[in-house]
Amino acid sequence: MKKETIERIRRFSTDRDWDQFHSPSNLAKSISIEAGELLECFQWNDTDYDLEHVKEELADVLVYCYDLLDKLNLDEDEIINSKMEKNEKKYPIEKSKGSSKKYNAL
Amino acid sequence: MKKETIERIRRFSTDRDWDQFHSPSNLAKSISIEAGELLECFQWNDTDYDLEHVKEELADVLVYCYDLLDKLNLDEDEIINSKMEKNEKKYPIEKSKGSSKKYNAL
Amino acid sequence: MKKETIERIRRFSTDRDWDQFHSPSNLAKSISIEAGELLECFQWNDTDYDLEHVKEELADVLVYCYDLLDKLNLDEDEIINSKMEKNEKKYPIEKSKGSSKKYNAL
Amino acid sequence: MKKETIERIRRFSTDRDWDQFHSPSNLAKSISIEAGELLECFQWNDTDYDLEHVKEELADVLVYCYDLLDKLNLDEDEIINSKMEKNEKKYPIEKSKGSSKKYNAL
Repeated sequence: MKKETIERIRRFSTDRDWDQFHSPSNLAKSISIEAGELLECFQWNDTDYDLEHVKEELADVLVYCYDLLDKLNLDEDEIINSKMEKNEKKYPIEKSKGSSKKYNAL
Repeated sequence: MKKETIERIRRFSTDRDWDQFHSPSNLAKSISIEAGELLECFQWNDTDYDLEHVKEELADVLVYCYDLLDKLNLDEDEIINSKMEKNEKKYPIEKSKGSSKKYNAL
Repeated sequence: MKKETIERIRRFSTDRDWDQFHSPSNLAKSISIEAGELLECFQWNDTDYDLEHVKEELADVLVYCYDLLDKLNLDEDEIINSKMEKNEKKYPIEKSKGSSKKYNAL
Repeated sequence: MKKETIERIRRFSTDRDWDQFHSPSNLAKSISIEAGELLECFQWNDTDYDLEHVKEELADVLVYCYDLLDKLNLDEDEIINSKMEKNEKKYPIEKSKGSSKKYNAL
């Protein structure tokens, strides 16, 4: 994400004095709520979805994710790389290739 | 996010032949599932959370968001900026400052 | 639901002194978290699911729903009938028959 | 729940020819989506919520839970009692009393 975009997300909250509402817990709720709205795009049909609507709801999820990263002073690349390292170990290629099984069922 | 991080997320899926499971609908489900796991960090207590656990679950949400962006060939900055433009209009500063009301209740 | 079942759910919480954690907000989070675990049964495959697992996760959602009904002193039949009345008006049979469209798109 | 209420929920779907959309997977998505809307009642404030709104959203979660019970031919009391038995073993009173810790952290 570009610096300007991150700045825009931040300014949106500070301009409205909304940082007071952005506790980690409230942001986690918000991510879940928006994830539900994204899922609603696929509620009754997996393939016939409204792309414009999907874009808006995915953007909402991402914005709250960035608010939470910001609130907790986290670096996106750092937490993702650290999680990917675990995922790569949990799902060795030879065992998990082509399989959708969970690691504890492999 | 850095190019290397995005590349790592992509490689993780292609190495395991998992792109076949990554329909937009399945990824939307996955974002919701991981958002629930993130929320679980705050299930009974809003302030006393395990930061390491929060980092892992937030990373999981973000990884699936990137998978969905990738699947639909979307540009993160573009969809966020387009949504922020709408949000800025829906929530005029003078009306929404310091208020957590929804736009339709302002 | 039978009275004994409701009583069992209640006793489970009072025996463990857990009513203190059952604020409406925490129960709403819990319903969402368990709904995510139920959804996980269908994450990568819509038709090939583990029925025993589905039963457990659906039970978890229902138990927290009953905890919330209890906490707010609500009658299940009353709130459902009152919502069904609205749904029946929002989705007139002639307009919605065979269609999965949302009421505002009918 | 009273028989008439269950019948009303069933009739609502059959009258509209909606059973075709009620796959277990779609119903699990629907439960998650409605759980997100219930959570939205508590998004920014844990204690100052709109009770009428909470009642509607909780009713929506319950209606989809009944649709899923129906679809899978499950008995609500049976699956709840079977889960409560496991919960009672997972959380022995002496260990879990007054604690909100997860069973694997007790």
